[in-house]
Amino acid sequence: MRMEKLRATGRFLRYSPKVSVFDRRLSSNSGKSIHSSASGYGNGFGKKCRDDVIRKWNGRACFGLYGYQGKNFRDCMERGVLDDTRRIQHRGFGSLAEKVQRNASFSTLNSDDISHFKGILGEKNVVEDEERLTIANTDWMHKYRGSSKLLLQPRSTEEVSQILKYCNSRNLAVVPQGGNTGLVGGSVPVFDEVVVNMSLMNNVISFDKVSGILVCEAGCILENLITFLDNQGFIMPLDLGAKGSCQIGGNVSTNAGGLRLVRYGSLHGTVLGLEVVLANGDVLDMLGTLRKDNTGYDLKHLFIGSEGSLGIVTKVSILTPPKLFSVNVAFLACQDYFSCQKLLVEAKRKLGEILSAFEFLDSHALDLVLNHLDGVRNPLPPTIHNFYVLIETTGSDETCDREKLEAFLVHAMEGGLISDGAIAQDINQASAFWYIREGVPEALMKAGAVYKYDLSLPVEKMYDLVDEMRTRLGDSANVVGYGHLGDGNLHLNVSTPQYDDKTLAQIEPFVYEWTSAHRGSISAEHGLGLMKANKIFYSKPTATVNLMASIKKMLDPKGILNPYKVLPHSIDSHS
Amino acid sequence: MRMEKLRATGRFLRYSPKVSVFDRRLSSNSGKSIHSSASGYGNGFGKKCRDDVIRKWNGRACFGLYGYQGKNFRDCMERGVLDDTRRIQHRGFGSLAEKVQRNASFSTLNSDDISHFKGILGEKNVVEDEERLTIANTDWMHKYRGSSKLLLQPRSTEEVSQILKYCNSRNLAVVPQGGNTGLVGGSVPVFDEVVVNMSLMNNVISFDKVSGILVCEAGCILENLITFLDNQGFIMPLDLGAKGSCQIGGNVSTNAGGLRLVRYGSLHGTVLGLEVVLANGDVLDMLGTLRKDNTGYDLKHLFIGSEGSLGIVTKVSILTPPKLFSVNVAFLACQDYFSCQKLLVEAKRKLGEILSAFEFLDSHALDLVLNHLDGVRNPLPPTIHNFYVLIETTGSDETCDREKLEAFLVHAMEGGLISDGAIAQDINQASAFWYIREGVPEALMKAGAVYKYDLSLPVEKMYDLVDEMRTRLGDSANVVGYGHLGDGNLHLNVSTPQYDDKTLAQIEPFVYEWTSAHRGSISAEHGLGLMKANKIFYSKPTATVNLMASIKKMLDPKGILNPYKVLPHSIDSHS
Repeated sequence: MRMEKLRATGRFLRYSPKVSVFDRRLSSNSGKSIHSSASGYGNGFGKKCRDDVIRKWNGRACFGLYGYQGKNFRDCMERGVLDDTRRIQHRGFGSLAEKVQRNASFSTLNSDDISHFKGILGEKNVVEDEERLTIANTDWMHKYRGSSKLLLQPRSTEEVSQILKYCNSRNLAVVPQGGNTGLVGGSVPVFDEVVVNMSLMNNVISFDKVSGILVCEAGCILENLITFLDNQGFIMPLDLGAKGSCQIGGNVSTNAGGLRLVRYGSLHGTVLGLEVVLANGDVLDMLGTLRKDNTGYDLKHLFIGSEGSLGIVTKVSILTPPKLFSVNVAFLACQDYFSCQKLLVEAKRKLGEILSAFEFLDSHALDLVLNHLDGVRNPLPPTIHNFYVLIETTGSDETCDREKLEAFLVHAMEGGLISDGAIAQDINQASAFWYIREGVPEALMKAGAVYKYDLSLPVEKMYDLVDEMRTRLGDSANVVGYGHLGDGNLHLNVSTPQYDDKTLAQIEPFVYEWTSAHRGSISAEHGLGLMKANKIFYSKPTATVNLMASIKKMLDPKGILNPYKVLPHSIDSHS
Repeated sequence: MRMEKLRATGRFLRYSPKVSVFDRRLSSNSGKSIHSSASGYGNGFGKKCRDDVIRKWNGRACFGLYGYQGKNFRDCMERGVLDDTRRIQHRGFGSLAEKVQRNASFSTLNSDDISHFKGILGEKNVVEDEERLTIANTDWMHKYRGSSKLLLQPRSTEEVSQILKYCNSRNLAVVPQGGNTGLVGGSVPVFDEVVVNMSLMNNVISFDKVSGILVCEAGCILENLITFLDNQGFIMPLDLGAKGSCQIGGNVSTNAGGLRLVRYGSLHGTVLGLEVVLANGDVLDMLGTLRKDNTGYDLKHLFIGSEGSLGIVTKVSILTPPKLFSVNVAFLACQDYFSCQKLLVEAKRKLGEILSAFEFLDSHALDLVLNHLDGVRNPLPPTIHNFYVLIETTGSDETCDREKLEAFLVHAMEGGLISDGAIAQDINQASAFWYIREGVPEALMKAGAVYKYDLSLPVEKMYDLVDEMRTRLGDSANVVGYGHLGDGNLHLNVSTPQYDDKTLAQIEPFVYEWTSAHRGSISAEHGLGLMKANKIFYSKPTATVNLMASIKKMLDPKGILNPYKVLPHSIDSHS
């Protein structure tokens, strides 16, 4: 009956064939869709599917969408696989690099300092080994490289406190470092700052199955927490491409966004408590495990997203949602951006509580993926549509959720919002659909030089910027728009055969000015770090930046915590 | 088939008869349950139901659960209806009142000041009328009464800015006032502070139907926003008993919790931006309308829940969820508290994304409601159960949601978690079920003197405090526990025939010490205000309170904003 309804629309909502679209041997099916009967739907597949998919992508793609998959990216670099892209990427970033002067008020490390740290931490956790320091001094993109001579590995809050107390008294600058997966140069030294690496503080402290509240140390790797919770029947409210390396303390310090934000919101909503060590070594115990607590200023929010410049997060308390087992993924085509927007509104209303992702890409992005990545196939016939939308639902009832999704899609087709579409029938198809969306960054890297912008904009205006950029650049560049439509987060990428300053001058500062004029954010989820510290005024008025500087001054009067980051250098050096 | 399953448990899950349980003429059905067939379920009822219910209760009960329904409460007082309870309440609070000294550094208002304000605001909005000042000087519970001689009604941010700039230069203390529905003396003057009333700043500025983001002025009454959004097909992510009077600026400033927190989280997650005027008149524009913005410290969180002591909120940007139409309510009996806890865990898992309320009350609370409120009937047979749980689901599919709820309840009965239960079949029954839960505060007021505590505690420990209090007080008092189990928020109430200091000494400081020892919060949703400013150390360590004081000092060096509130008076007077 449902299928009749689908056909009655005069167009076809396709059910993908059950073969994996990754499997090129079966590509004779390419471009042909099988109209399976409603009874032929595959069973729902669990959340595990997503994890498997991401693991698979880690192995093959090196790049996740929402950040860079630490270990695998490093593996790739070590094997030389990414040499070309790295070079392009490096050069692309080159013109953007900030020139900063070392703050002369900071001391230089001496042998007494080393002895003192060994007294606190023991020999083993005071690292001077050159190879390990090279890794700690270098960011994932090989864009920034510091010259730190010392990496410290505290095992407890008390040790972090002693380190900072000493550094503060000696005017030694410090860089807190988690998984070092950041993209804005926030997690590596700029000069000779002491690296405080949190990896050894990796214990789960408690988990309350009644409330779903997890308390753990800051050095816990996100993926380990996801696995731990999975065994308890819960999930982390955030999930990132970098989960195999990134740490929860770093996630909190950078207010990481990621895959689940549209459903579970930001860390400002889900983090219930923090323990933080301030620059002077004072320990701030805000490690509440309560959903409601209205006893004074909620100071933990100062440390969520301040990129380690106000204190080092040592423990985190976070509310985790129960794991739901029914997951569905649909890949849809829309004729214009307005239809994508309307579809989002409808999805929020009709899918309501089960909507867990709403991603979009334009035809330029899809073409890149189809042309540059191996084993990717368009699940829809090769008619050119202008936009594609990926919708994921996550709920607690397979039958209901599937019916709800189908009813929504039928309605959307009847209303002309979608031109075509396919629903994944099994885990492989869901993986394939997701891979199209998540493969865009990798395809862009393979296509040549790329200028990347991670912007938040009002959803209604979002694509106007892509159109305007396209007009500005004409035939000289391929302007690509994709991203988390459900979150208002646009990834604007300009792809050219080679990097050149003329193109850059066409893009910047226009892109920042346009974003600023539309009250957007020049950094949706990556933070400011070193890269965008001086760009802050595009997103924040002077009064707000001045207040940030006052707070920095109050909490870290000597400015030893993650210097040269977040705050504009003009202000920072005066503080 | 479902009913067979229900019967197969050997116990009975009841479907309430379709008559309203408010209707006493039909009470011959009382105590007898009708086992309707599965096909006899009433249709789902929309979210409007809840609003209607609350409106109904406003009219009859005067007290909502989550605060006090402003206009109606005042109406009742004016009609003398509540004289008795008010007297009891007043006396009950009497011993808790704080003794404070006026800060001698504040100036006293003179005629030049009045002229200056008239120059800014015009004659009409500079109010010296005694009757209006009496209202502004008095809190809802008639517990606190200030002696302000002046109420100002700004119409714009610019006017608020000019007011504060002047007050700061003249050392005139200020109390920001929204709907004045607070319960901790935070919204009324303590001495002669100038009242800045926000009622005239009540415009909706914009609403984006794509993203669901509402931007409005701080003086908008919550209920008006709810109505506005209802017409757009959206809801506010917070809902309070006081919604008819309270203003969104006050909600933000007190980080109001309320009915929807278990589903949509706190305002720290849903408020996307704020405009705030600082003590010196500077306007802080943080009025972002973006879900993602990682460009520096997220300073708006400082003003959420700081009770107007750091700045006056003038505009709010908030993410609103789409309205969902399928609502179900069940009233259940549990044998012990552990079963309530397990039921919560199961509900989160099995009902997952549609769970919208999980409330509990003990048998003492139910008895009070049955004995003291007119027209209330137990939906279950009069067997004594120790605990009762109210579960509400809100979703987008009536059939699915109902089936999901039933399957969950059948499973819970089979597992022995619930001893009995009823599902509301229509809006009247849902109202009746909610009224039992929300009627507890009113029943307590009617029963005699009442000592009220609003606490957050780890869910597992929550009821231990009630048991311990019962043991401490023996037969001298009726100790009642109820609240938002889903949020870990306990309302502990001690009911005695008359107020006496001996009972109070048995309760306090024990209740605060116990809460503190279990890392609970002495104010889950009401804030500290004047009432609990000196109790802050029960919930926050000294280092955190000191940092709060430093931030207060930085943003409001003369301490003119809402003095004597939030911070302990010892620290505040030194700042």
